[in-house]
Amino acid sequence: MLGAIFSKRHPKVGARPGTLEIGESAHPVRIRMMSYRGRKAREVDVDNLESLSEAFDESTVTWIDVQGFGDEPRIREIAELFQLHPLLLEDIVNVPHRPKAESYGDQLLVIVRMVRTNTEHLVEHEQVSLVLGKHYVLTFQEKHGDVLDPVRARIREGVGPIAQHGPDYLAYALIDTIVDAYYPLLEQIGDWLEALEDDAVLRPTPDVLHRLNRLRNRLSNLRRGIWPQRDAVSAMVRGDHAHISEEVRLYLRDTLDHCVQTTEVTEMYREMVTELINTYLSSLANRTNDVMKVLTIVATIFIPLSFIAGVYGMNFDNMPELHVRWAYPLVWLAMAATAMVMLGFFWRKGWLGGKGES
Amino acid sequence: MLGAIFSKRHPKVGARPGTLEIGESAHPVRIRMMSYRGRKAREVDVDNLESLSEAFDESTVTWIDVQGFGDEPRIREIAELFQLHPLLLEDIVNVPHRPKAESYGDQLLVIVRMVRTNTEHLVEHEQVSLVLGKHYVLTFQEKHGDVLDPVRARIREGVGPIAQHGPDYLAYALIDTIVDAYYPLLEQIGDWLEALEDDAVLRPTPDVLHRLNRLRNRLSNLRRGIWPQRDAVSAMVRGDHAHISEEVRLYLRDTLDHCVQTTEVTEMYREMVTELINTYLSSLANRTNDVMKVLTIVATIFIPLSFIAGVYGMNFDNMPELHVRWAYPLVWLAMAATAMVMLGFFWRKGWLGGKGES
Amino acid sequence: MLGAIFSKRHPKVGARPGTLEIGESAHPVRIRMMSYRGRKAREVDVDNLESLSEAFDESTVTWIDVQGFGDEPRIREIAELFQLHPLLLEDIVNVPHRPKAESYGDQLLVIVRMVRTNTEHLVEHEQVSLVLGKHYVLTFQEKHGDVLDPVRARIREGVGPIAQHGPDYLAYALIDTIVDAYYPLLEQIGDWLEALEDDAVLRPTPDVLHRLNRLRNRLSNLRRGIWPQRDAVSAMVRGDHAHISEEVRLYLRDTLDHCVQTTEVTEMYREMVTELINTYLSSLANRTNDVMKVLTIVATIFIPLSFIAGVYGMNFDNMPELHVRWAYPLVWLAMAATAMVMLGFFWRKGWLGGKGES
Amino acid sequence: MLGAIFSKRHPKVGARPGTLEIGESAHPVRIRMMSYRGRKAREVDVDNLESLSEAFDESTVTWIDVQGFGDEPRIREIAELFQLHPLLLEDIVNVPHRPKAESYGDQLLVIVRMVRTNTEHLVEHEQVSLVLGKHYVLTFQEKHGDVLDPVRARIREGVGPIAQHGPDYLAYALIDTIVDAYYPLLEQIGDWLEALEDDAVLRPTPDVLHRLNRLRNRLSNLRRGIWPQRDAVSAMVRGDHAHISEEVRLYLRDTLDHCVQTTEVTEMYREMVTELINTYLSSLANRTNDVMKVLTIVATIFIPLSFIAGVYGMNFDNMPELHVRWAYPLVWLAMAATAMVMLGFFWRKGWLGGKGES
Amino acid sequence: MLGAIFSKRHPKVGARPGTLEIGESAHPVRIRMMSYRGRKAREVDVDNLESLSEAFDESTVTWIDVQGFGDEPRIREIAELFQLHPLLLEDIVNVPHRPKAESYGDQLLVIVRMVRTNTEHLVEHEQVSLVLGKHYVLTFQEKHGDVLDPVRARIREGVGPIAQHGPDYLAYALIDTIVDAYYPLLEQIGDWLEALEDDAVLRPTPDVLHRLNRLRNRLSNLRRGIWPQRDAVSAMVRGDHAHISEEVRLYLRDTLDHCVQTTEVTEMYREMVTELINTYLSSLANRTNDVMKVLTIVATIFIPLSFIAGVYGMNFDNMPELHVRWAYPLVWLAMAATAMVMLGFFWRKGWLGGKGES
Repeated sequence: MLGAIFSKRHPKVGARPGTLEIGESAHPVRIRMMSYRGRKAREVDVDNLESLSEAFDESTVTWIDVQGFGDEPRIREIAELFQLHPLLLEDIVNVPHRPKAESYGDQLLVIVRMVRTNTEHLVEHEQVSLVLGKHYVLTFQEKHGDVLDPVRARIREGVGPIAQHGPDYLAYALIDTIVDAYYPLLEQIGDWLEALEDDAVLRPTPDVLHRLNRLRNRLSNLRRGIWPQRDAVSAMVRGDHAHISEEVRLYLRDTLDHCVQTTEVTEMYREMVTELINTYLSSLANRTNDVMKVLTIVATIFIPLSFIAGVYGMNFDNMPELHVRWAYPLVWLAMAATAMVMLGFFWRKGWLGGKGES
Repeated sequence: MLGAIFSKRHPKVGARPGTLEIGESAHPVRIRMMSYRGRKAREVDVDNLESLSEAFDESTVTWIDVQGFGDEPRIREIAELFQLHPLLLEDIVNVPHRPKAESYGDQLLVIVRMVRTNTEHLVEHEQVSLVLGKHYVLTFQEKHGDVLDPVRARIREGVGPIAQHGPDYLAYALIDTIVDAYYPLLEQIGDWLEALEDDAVLRPTPDVLHRLNRLRNRLSNLRRGIWPQRDAVSAMVRGDHAHISEEVRLYLRDTLDHCVQTTEVTEMYREMVTELINTYLSSLANRTNDVMKVLTIVATIFIPLSFIAGVYGMNFDNMPELHVRWAYPLVWLAMAATAMVMLGFFWRKGWLGGKGES
Repeated sequence: MLGAIFSKRHPKVGARPGTLEIGESAHPVRIRMMSYRGRKAREVDVDNLESLSEAFDESTVTWIDVQGFGDEPRIREIAELFQLHPLLLEDIVNVPHRPKAESYGDQLLVIVRMVRTNTEHLVEHEQVSLVLGKHYVLTFQEKHGDVLDPVRARIREGVGPIAQHGPDYLAYALIDTIVDAYYPLLEQIGDWLEALEDDAVLRPTPDVLHRLNRLRNRLSNLRRGIWPQRDAVSAMVRGDHAHISEEVRLYLRDTLDHCVQTTEVTEMYREMVTELINTYLSSLANRTNDVMKVLTIVATIFIPLSFIAGVYGMNFDNMPELHVRWAYPLVWLAMAATAMVMLGFFWRKGWLGGKGES
Repeated sequence: MLGAIFSKRHPKVGARPGTLEIGESAHPVRIRMMSYRGRKAREVDVDNLESLSEAFDESTVTWIDVQGFGDEPRIREIAELFQLHPLLLEDIVNVPHRPKAESYGDQLLVIVRMVRTNTEHLVEHEQVSLVLGKHYVLTFQEKHGDVLDPVRARIREGVGPIAQHGPDYLAYALIDTIVDAYYPLLEQIGDWLEALEDDAVLRPTPDVLHRLNRLRNRLSNLRRGIWPQRDAVSAMVRGDHAHISEEVRLYLRDTLDHCVQTTEVTEMYREMVTELINTYLSSLANRTNDVMKVLTIVATIFIPLSFIAGVYGMNFDNMPELHVRWAYPLVWLAMAATAMVMLGFFWRKGWLGGKGES
Repeated sequence: MLGAIFSKRHPKVGARPGTLEIGESAHPVRIRMMSYRGRKAREVDVDNLESLSEAFDESTVTWIDVQGFGDEPRIREIAELFQLHPLLLEDIVNVPHRPKAESYGDQLLVIVRMVRTNTEHLVEHEQVSLVLGKHYVLTFQEKHGDVLDPVRARIREGVGPIAQHGPDYLAYALIDTIVDAYYPLLEQIGDWLEALEDDAVLRPTPDVLHRLNRLRNRLSNLRRGIWPQRDAVSAMVRGDHAHISEEVRLYLRDTLDHCVQTTEVTEMYREMVTELINTYLSSLANRTNDVMKVLTIVATIFIPLSFIAGVYGMNFDNMPELHVRWAYPLVWLAMAATAMVMLGFFWRKGWLGGKGES
């Protein structure tokens, strides 16, 4: 449940800064380079880093995408090639880190959180770290697979603003795509909420509360990712990093709007969950009330009647009523009348469901 | 329920920025141009854009009102004619967008949310996007119909400040009218609240809670529209956009006051809803209490009496009381006394409704 | 209930700014002018405005007090005479407006809310608008009657600082008097709270909740008036309006202290109301608990006894106990012992009121 | 309860500023002067103010301590002697005033709130107003008696930093001593809380709730005194008042730390009270649950048994079981079996206290 | 419970500032000096301070670690040797003090709170005060033992950045290690929470509430330590203390990230505890509901049956049914039918566990 913000795989207390914590189950490293200028785009799967260093060309925009951290020496080689600061590298590898935008000398490190719903409708959180340099964008992802294929397609097509701008636009396009991927997830949560709404009113079982709590935890988790993301994008819009042009800032302002909107939807959902929990609790109280009413109606009608029957079951020698001819039917009548009075009282109180079912 | 802030019709993840998302059910495009200087006002329904471009005259104030987005090429033509930035166009068309005021170069984009109560007493939210240029105001509305007819009337009359000021005053008049349209809605919500107040105390049925929750959702929705609107107007008052004169800023300050007031009323209503929900829950607890009291009174009176009757229904050979002459009436007396003592006890506790109905 | 912050008499949507909304039941206009310098004070009831314009003398401090807005043309004449901005006039007449301090050119508009407890112990809210000019103070009140007589008396006396300072001191004196008039009201609310405190614990009837809710609404209302008032006074203290001297700012700082104190008392009262509502609810739970305990004690004692009696009321042929000589008294003993054991159990649980009445 | 922040003895509405409100029960005025330089300290009880004015010596640090406001003319004489501003005097005398630090020309007025636990363990709040001039410190206290004796002792001793610094250090020493006097009080509240903690769980009587509410009110009261005190000290640390040297600011920073700590402890206590109230309410719910369980166990066991007994008490002619030889003991067996099944059911549910007492 | 933020061992009210409050049970003083430059590291246990003063060498980085405050004269000697300000010394010795970073002239005092889980799984809080001078770092710890051994090891190894930087890096390394020591603790609390989650749903005993409250208190305690720690580190990152180089600020920024993360996890845990308390309370309500349902089912089935049996136990002379041949079995049938109808009713309501167990 806590996975997205608090990994149990934290560095050993007192470890030297810059120590990389790579788990046993880390995905193997896959490196892919795309470089483009206008309509000309080239894609290479990078196997050894020498070829990368050769292929690198400052006259094009280069995107190097690293997926999986399973091979520490290779990660370190890339870091060396692009002169990444050791702390920057630590932030990239020791996931999860809070989303942020931070300058390290000439480079801008942007950490965002990517969400993907997998086939079993579970949400996967994954950190994407993006390093923006003068001529290149590096991205680092913990696992294979991402939501960035539309950007790759737009690069290959070579039309639209992506082909005319530099690496800052590429960074924008990547971040924007990751932010927009929150929308389908929020949509799904909205569907879940609607389903739970009916259950909370009509079927207030403990399971509903459990699902509501789980949903709230998820939303808290999402919120914890979205808020700092918003701050990071805002810092990029308002900051003064040299590599981001005025025009791209305009585009980033648009991404910021999307961040704000996702934040608001998340907050709204959280409010709705709280509301549903209250509805659930009040349905529960209503149920207890219903149970009590049934008991009260049955008991208050029959207890006095049983008393009457009990009286005439006594064995006193001298009970004149017992010997009256029509006594037995009269007692029946008296009992029926008593029951009627009671039912009338309950009906007037609205407990019989006729007047308001309150 | 979420429609006002979160459309399910969001752009495809990773779509190129500037992509317009126009739904199947979009209203057809209707364009109407009003231009005026002093008492002279001219109105034209624009069918083809060439005529618009010809009719356009920089010496007058021109208001071009676009309703319905059903014809993408036409929308794009207008955008081209007035050189709207692609992102600006995206904000206008991909509704709903958060209210905001933002400069795009020479133009000021103001997005506000218009509310209208339709005939079935449902609230309709609609985005109005307003582009303020040097000589013109463009407005874009998603659907046909709006609350702006009083402004049109004032233009036609040609008296009052609207005739003497430029497009900035026109923009103010439009925004002010949209903000003021929240008042009748708030009034209606106030009426609903008063009706619910009685129900929560006297008839705490689950339906009341349901209506209270729905009302709270609506108010949350309203609030989410009003707050950023307030920020947008505030930005116009305090900002330094070249096209807004000092005098119009004074008028906008007045609109800001109205925004603040609607915010406060909304907040007040939300507080009242929370309070009513608490009242509802406590009424419910009161009801359970009442039910319990009825059960307790009846049961505690008759259970001991039944016990007495049961005792003298036993079949022991040697029960001297049974043969005493006045035993039977004495038992009745004893039972009546017991019942009296019980009733006295309940009366002293105030459970019989005499002393406080607590 | 909402009157103080939200009038249903709002301007028509889309009305031209500056439109005055004067209700049918508006009080007739009464204008009174006081002018003074040192010990010399003069008071005139102004009937026609020409005499006012003649009597006006820049070498004295002039206070023109307008009560009632029932005569629009006359209000407009005054506005013209003192060159009030149309928006300023709208703020004054279209009550209620949020308290604020705002410059309109050379004039400072201060809107405050005056409270008065009338004879039936109801609170009346009334807007007082104050326009501070170079040589004069204008006040506009919706209704006749106010709390400002002590200031009038001090002017007539002609001693103390009021006689030595200009219109800024007069404005201060008026605002200070209006702010201080909140104290008696708060005192009264304090008395109400103390009375409700006992009721919430000892007599938790639904009526108590109703009164608590009403009190909370009143406090919310008060708070909504006091908070912006505090901001307005603060703006006067810290602002740079030319007509307010350094010395008067010192006095206003004192008024600000009073505003802060009333705010705090209001907040404290709100906290106390919330607390009392919780106390009420817990008293209610306690009551249910008490009811249940009575039922449980009576039922658990007599139900087993009735069972015993029932057993010996059976008609089996072969029930040897029935024929034993001392069986009947022994059964009585057994039943008494059972009852004793039960009572002991309840006493040990503290349910009999002996050990803690929990 | 409200005494500490809201006196009913407020000035008459509209009174001239500077009016002193001195109650009937005001303590008589006692003035004591201490002056010292290094190891030389002199103490005089001031009877008439001429002697004070003579004894005043600018080459020493002079502390004039005024206790009790019962003699207005005398208070006014002192004010005149030290040229106190009328508003400053009003703040001093019209207690209680919010703690604050404010410059009046050359003088700095600091208002703090002193707490003392008296012999009956009641907390007494008292306002101490301190005026820091170039060569002197004036203190004004509403009542006789204070917590400042340790400072007096340090002055008499004539060692330590107090002897080497000027009046600013004296002011610091006084404020610091008053702030530190909150610690024993907080300690005592801590003890009360611990005692209430056990009661809330084990003995949830209405009295516990009452004591918790009283404690919360006290803490709110304390908090309302401590928060502005913190602001006042902070203003002295960061402000630029000429009479406070850099070194004394360092000491005041330490006092500020103590203020922050007392604030935090108060907040923590408030949180704990809220928590205890919740614990109390849940204990109450638990009790109701327990009561219900006893009723349910007894009733569900004996009601079916009574039914069986009732069946064989019927008087039908033709009931073959009645004549069976072992019927009576067999019915006992059946009833015992039924009871066993029921008890087993309750035991499995954990209602018998064996499995979890839930 | 309060130990970590509020010691009962506060200085006597009015004590001279700089007074050291050393408890009876203070640990004896142990001083250890490490000095290093590059790969050369030297460690000395300091017995007398003269040797310390001799061994001190400005060309190396010196770390003097003082554990235990049991010997006041010795502490004062060290303070004199390093010219510590008396207030700085008071902050160090009079534990606990809020975490902070504060300049005293040339020296920077940083107070942090170290947590250690001891063998019995109890959390120990201990204040670590760190004084950063030009050539040295002093640390003061209340008790023996700490979490800083990894730093000592890195100094001894003499590789990595610690060997190449000055005392500012050493200070960073110490603070970073102390901050990172919160992770294992948070992990453990996470485990506790998971265990409590099940209990709150399945076994809502009062003990669960007690443990939840205790956990919340602990988290509040932690939070009160972590928040100011974060401010302190932030002040070091953004402040302008001369002894901290730009590069070390970069490292501290990383520590700040960790502080932020621990804050967030703590907040998240607090939210989860609140949620679990609500779950607990709703489970309780569910239980009461269950108890009531059992009672209602049993009572409403058997009370009417008992009534029927009671009727035919009456002794009227004239009850024809009694003499009908098949009357007895028919009564049984009627009673079985009644019971069936009731069971059907409960089954339809879902109270029998079949349809939803609501």
